Amino acid sequence: MGEEVKVFGAWGSPFSRRVELALKLKGIQYEYIEEDIPKNKSPLLLKYNPVHKKVPVLLHNGNPIAESLVIIEYIDETWKGNYPILPEDPYDKAMARFWAKFIDDRCLPALWKAGWSPESEREKAVEEACECLKTLEGALGGKRFFGGDKVGLVDIAANFIGYWLRLIQEATGQELLSAEKFPDLFKWTDEFVNCNVVKESLPPKDKLLGLFKARIAAAAEAQPSAS
Amino acid sequence: MGEEVKVFGAWGSPFSRRVELALKLKGIQYEYIEEDIPKNKSPLLLKYNPVHKKVPVLLHNGNPIAESLVIIEYIDETWKGNYPILPEDPYDKAMARFWAKFIDDRCLPALWKAGWSPESEREKAVEEACECLKTLEGALGGKRFFGGDKVGLVDIAANFIGYWLRLIQEATGQELLSAEKFPDLFKWTDEFVNCNVVKESLPPKDKLLGLFKARIAAAAEAQPSAS
Repeated sequence: MGEEVKVFGAWGSPFSRRVELALKLKGIQYEYIEEDIPKNKSPLLLKYNPVHKKVPVLLHNGNPIAESLVIIEYIDETWKGNYPILPEDPYDKAMARFWAKFIDDRCLPALWKAGWSPESEREKAVEEACECLKTLEGALGGKRFFGGDKVGLVDIAANFIGYWLRLIQEATGQELLSAEKFPDLFKWTDEFVNCNVVKESLPPKDKLLGLFKARIAAAAEAQPSAS
Repeated sequence: MGEEVKVFGAWGSPFSRRVELALKLKGIQYEYIEEDIPKNKSPLLLKYNPVHKKVPVLLHNGNPIAESLVIIEYIDETWKGNYPILPEDPYDKAMARFWAKFIDDRCLPALWKAGWSPESEREKAVEEACECLKTLEGALGGKRFFGGDKVGLVDIAANFIGYWLRLIQEATGQELLSAEKFPDLFKWTDEFVNCNVVKESLPPKDKLLGLFKARIAAAAEAQPSAS
């Protein structure tokens, strides 16, 4: 009998795409369930993630798991033989966890603020975001991937920077990550999105760009007029 | 030749005390280096944790690791044979990681706000903190420890709730966690602080109470006077 592997996700969410990428790297077949977030979450999502009520959720043989980084470690430990996502050595593993956590705790909030905060708060946010990108470029240290010669935990965690960020830049016209400012990190984004298995885990470019443009238009409408 | 195991910590920090507790549970000898935070951090701390510039840092045979939860997993994997801190089963392990992350991401910020935010913002903060404690009581589910019959990752991560919180309540007179409101969680705090090895990892009660009272006095002085 086959295993039950289900992912509750949202097409535009880098967090649920992380889980899909991890499963694809492992070669695990799964059923994908699209959630209508934030307004129309399914009863199953609320049942399986009652604490955060968010995507992604992995359901494996009836057992639900939430939080993308927790899910990825679970996937790596459950299907150990396939494609190792975390390094074997405890110190290398600790470093991978440290950088994945840095991306979630520091980089993503800073990048989000830099992209979408009101203009009055933007300068400080941009400064902080660039500081994060610089630190991350240092962590990459000239390697092809954060995981060395292949995609690993940190690359998966950085999927927003590899794909979403450059599209947000295209939509807003604001450039945080460029080949001039962060040559190694910029090169990594190309390497990352050009991996076949990564490509399969990314949302369509036009659809995501459309989402960002709609967001910009909505923000402009919500601004108090100058009159 | 013996191993080099050093902890850079601060006596009142629950985060560095977590690392000490993990090492004590494993029976690992270590050298403790007290850091004068936040104002007078040592050059070694800045060298070993250049990203966050915070305690705790574990130095193991020349390799530095930061972030308490990352350190604890490293300790558990490096000294595998001794005392298992995380469960062996991947799903149980994922659940332990989920709850440890919940404590760091949701509970601690909420409890901190509830304890120290200005009175005008306190009501909402208290509500959120109680919601977190309720969720955590559910996670405990009547067990003696979060780790079952012995202290595990989640118990270590919850050390602030087990010890610091009740002392803060004593200093401020504000009661968030009581035997009436959260009987199981309250009972857990007693179980936790009465474990011998946990006791050895906690800061002296009077010293910590003194710190909190000084903080309250400083906050009162900083308040605009009513005149």
